[in-house]
Amino acid sequence: MPEHRVAVVGAGGFGGALCAHIVHHHPSLELTAVTARSGAGRRHDELYRRYRVPLGMEEFDADAIAERADAALVAYPHKAAALAVKALRERGLKVVDLSADFRLDQARYEHWYQPHEAPELLDEAVYGMPELHREAIRSADLVAGPGCNSTAALLALLPVRGRIEEAAVDVKAGVSGAGREATDETHFVSVVDNVNAYKVEGHRHTAELEQELPGVHFSFVAHLLPIDQGILASCYARPSAPITAAEAHELAVETYRDEPFVEVVSDPPRTRDVRDTNRATVQVTVVNERVLAFCAIDNLWKGAAGQAVQDLNLMLGLPETEGLR
Amino acid sequence: MPEHRVAVVGAGGFGGALCAHIVHHHPSLELTAVTARSGAGRRHDELYRRYRVPLGMEEFDADAIAERADAALVAYPHKAAALAVKALRERGLKVVDLSADFRLDQARYEHWYQPHEAPELLDEAVYGMPELHREAIRSADLVAGPGCNSTAALLALLPVRGRIEEAAVDVKAGVSGAGREATDETHFVSVVDNVNAYKVEGHRHTAELEQELPGVHFSFVAHLLPIDQGILASCYARPSAPITAAEAHELAVETYRDEPFVEVVSDPPRTRDVRDTNRATVQVTVVNERVLAFCAIDNLWKGAAGQAVQDLNLMLGLPETEGLR
Amino acid sequence: MPEHRVAVVGAGGFGGALCAHIVHHHPSLELTAVTARSGAGRRHDELYRRYRVPLGMEEFDADAIAERADAALVAYPHKAAALAVKALRERGLKVVDLSADFRLDQARYEHWYQPHEAPELLDEAVYGMPELHREAIRSADLVAGPGCNSTAALLALLPVRGRIEEAAVDVKAGVSGAGREATDETHFVSVVDNVNAYKVEGHRHTAELEQELPGVHFSFVAHLLPIDQGILASCYARPSAPITAAEAHELAVETYRDEPFVEVVSDPPRTRDVRDTNRATVQVTVVNERVLAFCAIDNLWKGAAGQAVQDLNLMLGLPETEGLR
Amino acid sequence: MPEHRVAVVGAGGFGGALCAHIVHHHPSLELTAVTARSGAGRRHDELYRRYRVPLGMEEFDADAIAERADAALVAYPHKAAALAVKALRERGLKVVDLSADFRLDQARYEHWYQPHEAPELLDEAVYGMPELHREAIRSADLVAGPGCNSTAALLALLPVRGRIEEAAVDVKAGVSGAGREATDETHFVSVVDNVNAYKVEGHRHTAELEQELPGVHFSFVAHLLPIDQGILASCYARPSAPITAAEAHELAVETYRDEPFVEVVSDPPRTRDVRDTNRATVQVTVVNERVLAFCAIDNLWKGAAGQAVQDLNLMLGLPETEGLR
Repeated sequence: MPEHRVAVVGAGGFGGALCAHIVHHHPSLELTAVTARSGAGRRHDELYRRYRVPLGMEEFDADAIAERADAALVAYPHKAAALAVKALRERGLKVVDLSADFRLDQARYEHWYQPHEAPELLDEAVYGMPELHREAIRSADLVAGPGCNSTAALLALLPVRGRIEEAAVDVKAGVSGAGREATDETHFVSVVDNVNAYKVEGHRHTAELEQELPGVHFSFVAHLLPIDQGILASCYARPSAPITAAEAHELAVETYRDEPFVEVVSDPPRTRDVRDTNRATVQVTVVNERVLAFCAIDNLWKGAAGQAVQDLNLMLGLPETEGLR
Repeated sequence: MPEHRVAVVGAGGFGGALCAHIVHHHPSLELTAVTARSGAGRRHDELYRRYRVPLGMEEFDADAIAERADAALVAYPHKAAALAVKALRERGLKVVDLSADFRLDQARYEHWYQPHEAPELLDEAVYGMPELHREAIRSADLVAGPGCNSTAALLALLPVRGRIEEAAVDVKAGVSGAGREATDETHFVSVVDNVNAYKVEGHRHTAELEQELPGVHFSFVAHLLPIDQGILASCYARPSAPITAAEAHELAVETYRDEPFVEVVSDPPRTRDVRDTNRATVQVTVVNERVLAFCAIDNLWKGAAGQAVQDLNLMLGLPETEGLR
Repeated sequence: MPEHRVAVVGAGGFGGALCAHIVHHHPSLELTAVTARSGAGRRHDELYRRYRVPLGMEEFDADAIAERADAALVAYPHKAAALAVKALRERGLKVVDLSADFRLDQARYEHWYQPHEAPELLDEAVYGMPELHREAIRSADLVAGPGCNSTAALLALLPVRGRIEEAAVDVKAGVSGAGREATDETHFVSVVDNVNAYKVEGHRHTAELEQELPGVHFSFVAHLLPIDQGILASCYARPSAPITAAEAHELAVETYRDEPFVEVVSDPPRTRDVRDTNRATVQVTVVNERVLAFCAIDNLWKGAAGQAVQDLNLMLGLPETEGLR
Repeated sequence: MPEHRVAVVGAGGFGGALCAHIVHHHPSLELTAVTARSGAGRRHDELYRRYRVPLGMEEFDADAIAERADAALVAYPHKAAALAVKALRERGLKVVDLSADFRLDQARYEHWYQPHEAPELLDEAVYGMPELHREAIRSADLVAGPGCNSTAALLALLPVRGRIEEAAVDVKAGVSGAGREATDETHFVSVVDNVNAYKVEGHRHTAELEQELPGVHFSFVAHLLPIDQGILASCYARPSAPITAAEAHELAVETYRDEPFVEVVSDPPRTRDVRDTNRATVQVTVVNERVLAFCAIDNLWKGAAGQAVQDLNLMLGLPETEGLR
């Protein structure tokens, strides 16, 4: 018998659609509402047949949702997300927000985005990476799901936290990370047989990385690949003191010894091996005096919807891995 | 009327097969022989229908080739290549070798590979990147075609030569770069929906980069992508003195002002745009005090066969771009 | 607590590997042994990381397996399969065989394959498509898993059984159907950006179709696509008497009303929607007086391993869908 | 020195863009104008970098074009095409139209499309398949470029013209055939890992086939594949009298003996082998008393722009293959 009623706000996009799927099939959660900004009125399983969520999509109405749900996953673009989160928090729902709106402190956010729509909530928001903030997430009412690129980069570099001065983060990302909107950039003919950088400036991502791994000078570039789901982060870091490959590997093993979703490996991580799972595969080594750290995740799972449900499990006192195997 | 008779040795692999195609359709060259280690006896256009080279593939016989050719492109694996090159040079042919055998000085080569099979030829060998060594190539009898990964990395970084101390080179490469052999790694099911690093050690490549761009501390990792042809090199470099994005761009424009095959762009290079061409697209910029340099090439063209014919054109006194447009 | 001990024979290939995965995660089955012809000695999850089966692969030894298992899934190539099945049946195990060895009657088999290695078992073998032979499967000790191409074609055409005289079956299949062996045909560079027919003769498949849908004159061609998993069968059939699109659709709805894994749809089935599931999506319509019938399945699931476990569930008296959702 | 001035109308779409590329690099043609309905004002090589056409795109203005061009290739959608063609014909230009507007007789056209915008031109229009109507094309002022699906199907079946009663045409097509517009259907995530039928009704295509191959009862379904360029037509035909595989093959050899762009083969045609060329590869055989005929083309070349230039060459008295090798 499901113990908690959950709404997914913004279930028409890739991340929100998967949230709906995971919640709907989760043994302790009941999916009670799905909303979509466009597409309201259609059934979810008509738009996403393979997710098999037999609910109609509604317009967002905070009161209507509050009557039916105790918690919500919000998968709106930034700015729109803050407004929805605010409305839901005012009605007492626990919320995991998948946008950038509650990831950064106000100064960083307003420097790289725009004036914040709900700055009064920033204090209560917890950065939703369990590997970094598990205990804070357990007692939070508002959790900010990390970005998919940052999740991969942080999981790669966490083992050498405090031991590196500078890092170049080269992210290779599947097209679902660019969103469901049909554009010239997401047209099949633009993507197939191709690879290119697409976030060369990358300031928004370095802000997130610098906040969570302070003291490191970051470069960050994301690249678009002809795969649908998956992110590989390749990180090249200058250590502050000499370190061996064996030590780096051992640090990774130590860091993730008790983590249910992070696996430390000795061979290069492959996105294919974690596709459609909430797992992350991490390799950390040293070559030619530089730390090389790799992490593969599925951007829609550990990089978005899967990690959001992992957060929600913690917030609701459920087993952390429930519904995610 | 073709002026020069050319043989392609090792025309069964991807690089050699394209050499045969380009030479066969080149207005000033006559393709007089193609050899293959396996596959001898079969017609080339049976194995590579789209290249339309109507010749039978022969076993390698230096004397037989010397009777019919004045120059040769050798596309054997390293070590086997040195032996073939030696035999052909002894018979007076001009040679472009596509393997690693004549790219490095003897010390570097023997450190990362094995004892050299023809060390006496190393002195006359010229590193075949026209953008670096055009005049030397013109008068050379033996040219070592650069590796595809190094070609992309060097073209990205040449504009900031002398201005950087350290660089991480992240190469994203199509499967044809891994060779024609059918293996677990090149099986479609291993490659599709996937990306992974595959040359994490990378010492052989850093040796080549350090030789051609001395004074820079390199990290190098190649990644395998689900595309057939194409390489994107993304380079993250620490400058020795502050430099602006505009200065970096201007350096690239200056460096390549007269280059027939290198195009400097302001948007991220796309491998798709150079597919099946000998062109390279280069972007150099500065973000967050680090130089970001990108280069896209087709690994089989500018990264192998195309550049080899570009070298041969120079060696034979032909227009550098002939047969390559 | 698992009730039945099951071995997977031939777990190194794509179909057998998935059998091991499904059995290992099945609530009522215990995977007690996995064998592989090559690869014995390695761990299964080293070869197939994403399937997460933590067992070592053994050489095949019928006695050793009989000690530990009550049932077996055999995923060997034909001929080798018959010998293994014979050995296991002699030791009392229930067997689902995924090869062609027990699908056809002896005459058909020996006409298109070779002399049968265990003809005495043919009488007890049941063709393992539950939608055709559910009751016989329940009481069988030996079940022949249908071919993936035939599964898709039969599911498309079953609704119009008895109403068509002739059918052209055009199958579009992912590369995993061609097997795990690395060959020129399965090399990424051969498959990507390509489509071609590869089983133009197709006699073995028409034999299977003619046996299960007698009275229809079949043409059959399989095509290889650049996808890893998935089969779409497109069937063009001449009806023996006029039929409308609405009637054809209604026949499909009737035929599959109680089927747990077959879904009748009004839009063209997409392989993507059934990927990594045991489901089949079927559309049957009539255009220009011809029946057009389509079926999409995942060749490794409903076309091989998933259907084999569905059969095994029936043979063991378990819920038919257990372990397959 | 180019002899003829040519405009490309509608150069922003995939087909028109390639027309511009071919004309621009054609030794006897000068590309004097490119127009685009959206995108006017931008340079063509900004939108299509790899085609390297250094012209600005203009709004369509028949007078302005007539001043600068003697002939035009029109690559607008149907209906808009007829209007542009009419305006250009009134100003004396020879025209090849790539839309459906002049392929069918008026009755067929208006049955499947809409009232015709320039019915007075239908009499002078010639169906632009040189393999069927070469002499008529030579003297035509208006040529209707065949559809890409019909080109593949007709080339497959021409050898058995007059010998078949019924044919099912199963077309497998790359995404560029669906056009440059970004839609849910052309989004990378919809296409990759997928295959589905998408023109099940197919009446417009059967109309074109029935007109050019009268007396055959056609079924036609097009499928969308995860490739960018390429069409494979697989045809299953019932012969009106028995025919052997050898006879069918010989008919194909005879039919195409003098054709510069059609190659008859004995193995299944592969789209990869004709990619980026104007060639068609055809196999015709007989299995189980049915004719199986296959044709592979590049939908943008022989299926659209390449064939249009082939037509234009004929209309202008140029060598038929000029600019197309």
